[in-house]
Amino acid sequence: MKYELLKTEGLAKRGRFHTVHGVIETPVFMNVGTVAAIKGAVSTDDLREIKCQVELSNTYHLHVRTGDKLIKELGGLHRFMNWDRPILTDSGGFQVFSLAHLRKITEEGVEFRDPKDGKKHFISPEISMEIQQAIGADIIMAFDWCAPYGCDYDTAKQAMEITHRWLDRCIKAKTRENQALFPICQGAFYDDLRKESAAYVSDIDAVGYAIGGLSVGEDKETMNHFVELTAPLLPHNKPRYLMGVGTPEDLLDGIKRGIDMFDCVLPTRNARNGSYFTHDGNLSIKQERFIHDFGPVDKECNCKVCGNYSRSYLRHLFKEQEILSCMLASYHNLYFLHNMMKEIRNAIEENRFEEYRTEFLKRYHAGNIK
Amino acid sequence: MKYELLKTEGLAKRGRFHTVHGVIETPVFMNVGTVAAIKGAVSTDDLREIKCQVELSNTYHLHVRTGDKLIKELGGLHRFMNWDRPILTDSGGFQVFSLAHLRKITEEGVEFRDPKDGKKHFISPEISMEIQQAIGADIIMAFDWCAPYGCDYDTAKQAMEITHRWLDRCIKAKTRENQALFPICQGAFYDDLRKESAAYVSDIDAVGYAIGGLSVGEDKETMNHFVELTAPLLPHNKPRYLMGVGTPEDLLDGIKRGIDMFDCVLPTRNARNGSYFTHDGNLSIKQERFIHDFGPVDKECNCKVCGNYSRSYLRHLFKEQEILSCMLASYHNLYFLHNMMKEIRNAIEENRFEEYRTEFLKRYHAGNIK
Repeated sequence: MKYELLKTEGLAKRGRFHTVHGVIETPVFMNVGTVAAIKGAVSTDDLREIKCQVELSNTYHLHVRTGDKLIKELGGLHRFMNWDRPILTDSGGFQVFSLAHLRKITEEGVEFRDPKDGKKHFISPEISMEIQQAIGADIIMAFDWCAPYGCDYDTAKQAMEITHRWLDRCIKAKTRENQALFPICQGAFYDDLRKESAAYVSDIDAVGYAIGGLSVGEDKETMNHFVELTAPLLPHNKPRYLMGVGTPEDLLDGIKRGIDMFDCVLPTRNARNGSYFTHDGNLSIKQERFIHDFGPVDKECNCKVCGNYSRSYLRHLFKEQEILSCMLASYHNLYFLHNMMKEIRNAIEENRFEEYRTEFLKRYHAGNIK
Repeated sequence: MKYELLKTEGLAKRGRFHTVHGVIETPVFMNVGTVAAIKGAVSTDDLREIKCQVELSNTYHLHVRTGDKLIKELGGLHRFMNWDRPILTDSGGFQVFSLAHLRKITEEGVEFRDPKDGKKHFISPEISMEIQQAIGADIIMAFDWCAPYGCDYDTAKQAMEITHRWLDRCIKAKTRENQALFPICQGAFYDDLRKESAAYVSDIDAVGYAIGGLSVGEDKETMNHFVELTAPLLPHNKPRYLMGVGTPEDLLDGIKRGIDMFDCVLPTRNARNGSYFTHDGNLSIKQERFIHDFGPVDKECNCKVCGNYSRSYLRHLFKEQEILSCMLASYHNLYFLHNMMKEIRNAIEENRFEEYRTEFLKRYHAGNIK
């Protein structure tokens, strides 16, 4: 697996990431299909239609709910969900650590209880690797400790240090050649820890590198500060992945600071709440003013939802709690982001990314939805 | 609007029904999109894909929830839901009468309370026509009184007689030329009443005729008896519509007895419960034995669900309560029925419907799902 850096504009990078299941043009937004399915009824057939390049699934859910052994028996996640393009799995760390009262951390790993059925589970770096190797994604993530937002310096340092030791164990435990293991930079919201962690992970000859522990509750300026601080410390000629980030604004801000890869559940979560991305800001479809609005959600969007259905009808579906509402809104929001990323890749190639970014944000923030 | 009878085999009819929004090849199964949306996240885009010919919506829901005045303002239901092919609306009668404790019937019409918000509404034959004319379907139904299953003779007779008087008022109230009004034969489960009602409605020069009040709790033999008794009494050279009926078996039984049109919520309701139609009977996807089953739901089905997803994956989606499960199962079940109806139309044309019916049912009832 190999990353080609094709072009830069400032810190913004236009690249091409070759994986076992095909090429990923970067910058890229990755769809989140938690339990091998995109929430909001978007099928892998639809993913092909909207030109999704990478599907991301959650190791925690696949392990605890579906069973990674079963997925392996069935020929791996690609075959299980009928998706023959690249897949990324996270390490399970983020989900495990969010079970604040249900988990116990030791040097060895993390013991936790499934909040659904109370069953005990244990994940260590070795087990995370074993699970992710069974699932068979193209890109797998190191098992890390994501310190909670607002934690003190000592906790942040401890989490970072254990993340580094666990990273070494992940590297040792990994046996499959056709999977790329991405180390994760932690360090919470402390400059020196972030620098230390970026240096530590960069020392490893990995296919790509991730920044974890951001977009966990901090404001945008703080997030941008830490992306700006960390991204340039990670190898320039490798893909950099900013985990859990994905509003149109965040994508532009991240790319400007040298990020190649993003993922976020927000586009489909917002969709389920009736919120649609548009070039003029987010449109909440439930508003009364759309009752008589026969226009599309976004006149400039070429997706089939905007081509076929009016705001009036989409509002009706949302108010009636028809699941068709989730499906159409999810489809639109994902299409919108993938299309935006295509435009961004073109803009970087043509040296007009900064212009694109400024104009997009100006209009997006003005929020003059007509 | 005109019906051409192309071919018969016994009582089975192969016809072509010309409507303002295009031709309906009969026999036909009509999709139910209660509130201008098919439950289970099947879009009108999908309906075109699965070759649905007629979409059916419920006057009661569109009136009480969406507002027929709004639909009219927005250019009618076709435009509202982006469906340019034929639409049928029921009269609202069935839903109103099912609100047993919330309605008051007089000669004038029915007063009822919306169970969702307690608001008072009133529907009469004239109001039903007004609403259905505002919605703008191609086929509209007379406002009838569907007597409850198991009712005594006097109630059945009273319901039938009021249905006939209301039918006369519907005919008088109808003003739009481009809509076909179908009278409904009632009479519950009494031979003489059914005969009397069939004679009454047949005396009217309508575009098509419906049989109501069946499939309300009776066994299949009873239903078949009353279809057999009633259908031949309705004009042979006009479409006959058996309301609320739509399992594969019921379709075959109805067609054999001279029915042209069917509708039912069952294919999508079953789908939401994880039940898939197959040539070998209904397949309940939740079964443990499908965990390791990488085959399609039905090997002989050409729909995209059977083409793309395994039983194992579909079972997983159902167990995880992903709404993608509803969507894929609904898509398959509707595709299955539309495809079956196409095969039936071909079979009648080639004089082998009875053979098709026997073989289909033999295999379907054997239920040897491999």
